[in-house]
Amino acid sequence: MSTEVTNPPSALPPFDTGQHLLSVSQLDRAALTRLFAVAESLRPVGEGRMVCRILEGAVLGSLFFEPSTRTRLSFESAFRRLGGSVVSTTGFTFSSMAKGESIHDTARVVSGYSDAMVVRHPDTGSVAQFAQASVVPVINAGDGSGEHPSQSLLDLFTMREELSSRDKSIDGATIAVLGDLRYGRTVHSLLQILGLYDNVSFRVFGPPALALPSGFFDLVASTGNRIVECDSVDEAIAPADVIYCTRVQKERLSEEDEQAVHLHGDLLNTAILQEHASPDAIVMHPLPRDSRHNSFDLSPDVDGFPGLAIFRQTDNGLLVRMAIFSIALGVADRVADELRPATWRRR
Amino acid sequence: MSTEVTNPPSALPPFDTGQHLLSVSQLDRAALTRLFAVAESLRPVGEGRMVCRILEGAVLGSLFFEPSTRTRLSFESAFRRLGGSVVSTTGFTFSSMAKGESIHDTARVVSGYSDAMVVRHPDTGSVAQFAQASVVPVINAGDGSGEHPSQSLLDLFTMREELSSRDKSIDGATIAVLGDLRYGRTVHSLLQILGLYDNVSFRVFGPPALALPSGFFDLVASTGNRIVECDSVDEAIAPADVIYCTRVQKERLSEEDEQAVHLHGDLLNTAILQEHASPDAIVMHPLPRDSRHNSFDLSPDVDGFPGLAIFRQTDNGLLVRMAIFSIALGVADRVADELRPATWRRR
Amino acid sequence: MSTEVTNPPSALPPFDTGQHLLSVSQLDRAALTRLFAVAESLRPVGEGRMVCRILEGAVLGSLFFEPSTRTRLSFESAFRRLGGSVVSTTGFTFSSMAKGESIHDTARVVSGYSDAMVVRHPDTGSVAQFAQASVVPVINAGDGSGEHPSQSLLDLFTMREELSSRDKSIDGATIAVLGDLRYGRTVHSLLQILGLYDNVSFRVFGPPALALPSGFFDLVASTGNRIVECDSVDEAIAPADVIYCTRVQKERLSEEDEQAVHLHGDLLNTAILQEHASPDAIVMHPLPRDSRHNSFDLSPDVDGFPGLAIFRQTDNGLLVRMAIFSIALGVADRVADELRPATWRRR
Repeated sequence: MSTEVTNPPSALPPFDTGQHLLSVSQLDRAALTRLFAVAESLRPVGEGRMVCRILEGAVLGSLFFEPSTRTRLSFESAFRRLGGSVVSTTGFTFSSMAKGESIHDTARVVSGYSDAMVVRHPDTGSVAQFAQASVVPVINAGDGSGEHPSQSLLDLFTMREELSSRDKSIDGATIAVLGDLRYGRTVHSLLQILGLYDNVSFRVFGPPALALPSGFFDLVASTGNRIVECDSVDEAIAPADVIYCTRVQKERLSEEDEQAVHLHGDLLNTAILQEHASPDAIVMHPLPRDSRHNSFDLSPDVDGFPGLAIFRQTDNGLLVRMAIFSIALGVADRVADELRPATWRRR
Repeated sequence: MSTEVTNPPSALPPFDTGQHLLSVSQLDRAALTRLFAVAESLRPVGEGRMVCRILEGAVLGSLFFEPSTRTRLSFESAFRRLGGSVVSTTGFTFSSMAKGESIHDTARVVSGYSDAMVVRHPDTGSVAQFAQASVVPVINAGDGSGEHPSQSLLDLFTMREELSSRDKSIDGATIAVLGDLRYGRTVHSLLQILGLYDNVSFRVFGPPALALPSGFFDLVASTGNRIVECDSVDEAIAPADVIYCTRVQKERLSEEDEQAVHLHGDLLNTAILQEHASPDAIVMHPLPRDSRHNSFDLSPDVDGFPGLAIFRQTDNGLLVRMAIFSIALGVADRVADELRPATWRRR
Repeated sequence: MSTEVTNPPSALPPFDTGQHLLSVSQLDRAALTRLFAVAESLRPVGEGRMVCRILEGAVLGSLFFEPSTRTRLSFESAFRRLGGSVVSTTGFTFSSMAKGESIHDTARVVSGYSDAMVVRHPDTGSVAQFAQASVVPVINAGDGSGEHPSQSLLDLFTMREELSSRDKSIDGATIAVLGDLRYGRTVHSLLQILGLYDNVSFRVFGPPALALPSGFFDLVASTGNRIVECDSVDEAIAPADVIYCTRVQKERLSEEDEQAVHLHGDLLNTAILQEHASPDAIVMHPLPRDSRHNSFDLSPDVDGFPGLAIFRQTDNGLLVRMAIFSIALGVADRVADELRPATWRRR
């Protein structure tokens, strides 16, 4: 697990029709704005009020070399909601690769069955390798400690929507980031991608053994934003517009680390929020959260807090992934025209 | 495994559009009649002669926390036959739950990707818990020793169809119930749901160690139907309109139990049927049956018996599950108008 | 693993609408010509330029009792590209069969959920047994050392297309066959099915311990074609129009065998091709190939060779499988009329 700032691969072309999406570095601010507008236009489809069949006849190849059920379901549901079909496989079931087949051959063959692919793999860089041999656009759904661009995009989209409903914007926002700042991939991606926005103030707090690697302070500074390391949750959240929590990835800690880290109690709960945070604050978390008592995570007792956006985050994931597919397959400009009322209803 | 009569959760609302289906207790006789009419109208779709695309654009989340291949395939095929799509997962692959995620969070997140869900779980009551957090209707596909309502409904639907083709009805029918009466969930559900019908006579027979728990005799009596415990298969089936067989769930028996129980030979075969049953009798079984010799189950040699309805039962499962989805998603009144001839044919 | 020539089951009817496809012996030359014409007409669908929704409403049951990810994905993508849906299961998850259920019951039940089935099973003959109980057409996707007809058909289709683009045809072609001639199921099937063509010259080479069983020499002779055993790759490929390579199935070799067999170096690489083969030669391989160094397989260094058709082979697999489904479900004569431009594009 790398805890260093890595420079994004510079050779990647901007994300657009026919292109792979391997890294958030493929999107500039204009591209983000466009993607989010497409996502927003698809909200009635995500909510089951309208249907859109614009990808009818297209087949998505969904290859999860390591399981990640909710990410897989979200991507597959997004493609299906646009009228497409999915062929899917999970786990290390590629017996071919055990027989000495190269990632090139696997990728070339399987891409020939699909019109787009979603690939997750435990090894950093392997999805990019996969994409090189593919004859269709490949969306990176996470490659180890590498990138997981759709997660960063849904975080950003949610932040934007939630702030906008309070007449604020990401430009100028104060964002508290709490929890595992050392290993949390989503935190690192967020700090990087928010470099596209202006006047952002980060206030970060994590247990000493899980502090933010120093390179990220330089990274934020280099983009013109501000970052402050806080000594407590209270101090971090007090002026925050957005509070972004993360789970401590206990499975990555050594026993010593675990001793050193304050890992009991709650990271954040209603009492702390009521005492220290703005009543208007937005609370986010990439999920899953550890809901067991004393797990040093976001307590389930916050579920009544009005600014809790954690489930809107996952709901938004569907919209963002629909938008990603729309762009990759060249239909983004037409989705809004293809909406029609659903003939069924959930409620 | 409970062998006691449990009172159905009284708080459940009647099953209708936008509601979960957790228990057969959510349907009264009028609701059964309506559901069966919808199922019957979808027969040409089940048989591949007509197609119906009324759920186009809808996505079913199919979550099997324990594998049950045929139940899963039947539900998924039912949703797809109505034009919908399915995202599916099997086994305890919810790595999130291993990381301490609550059933509430899992349910809320995954329900946000779907328009309806089918959930199977090994623990009694967990599907109801899942449903509480879901934002879309949840169909219970079996929760341990709890309920499996679609199985009860397809049994009932089949009984009704088969009796009707003989100018009989469930009201007034004599029903023999054979096999594992102690642990058989389907038997217990059947005795309960048939309480909605009048003048039913049950004749039950099982090996002593697998006899019907006493509470079920009281239950049947309380509904005004009759129930007689018989000393032999012969005695049970002689006057029966319907003979409902079940497999002995050997995996649940202690070694002692297994010794005590008569578990060799056939439970029912052609010779027994020809000597003791009405030639017009209907033979049912929830399947799978144990087809190995001497397994104390329904012998494969009955496959030529005209009243054998075991495969019509599973075929009917598709119709009943299509009807369940049609009601949950509010299209039941329109399915019949949406049928059109298939452009392909199986035969 | 049988290495003997087995006579195809003579009782199988010709492959046509409503029929199972269990063996290539069900197709005569006219049937091959028709199937290949349908496959060719579907090329724009395989390439994502056109869509064809002729199987809308139909459900394929995909049952892989042993995993074979790429074969499964290819079949499932083919069915979905024609507008159909798929219900799918992989691995020995049929808990029912563990409880003593017969293959007859499993097949009858699951076939009732589908309009066609694709079945793969590790035991020779079991797919035919499955088909006997099925109420819908069953396509054999491989049964152990038995048949895998769609693989043979895509090999043949590719050979035909590649030769045709060089103004040649299979009739009169010289075909080198290299590698594991003893255990290679695809090789054996190819020698059999090419008996339907005239004046074919085979030139075969394999390591002594993996030589072609003698019965196949008689088989080829009996069809009027020629076959020559060569002492080296060079000798085999020199006059060849087509060079068909196969992987050595090391998992099948005893340690002794492995010692006896020349298993280091390349089976074929660019240097060998440039020195000994026609620049116009077509190089095929059923894949996967072993891309590790010294694996005695087709070297990855041939990937720039213009006649390398290995990925066109797998791409063609999609077309051939669409054609198989079109014939089985009675729409083959209409697919060409149902093509319409895709509303999306991959590139």
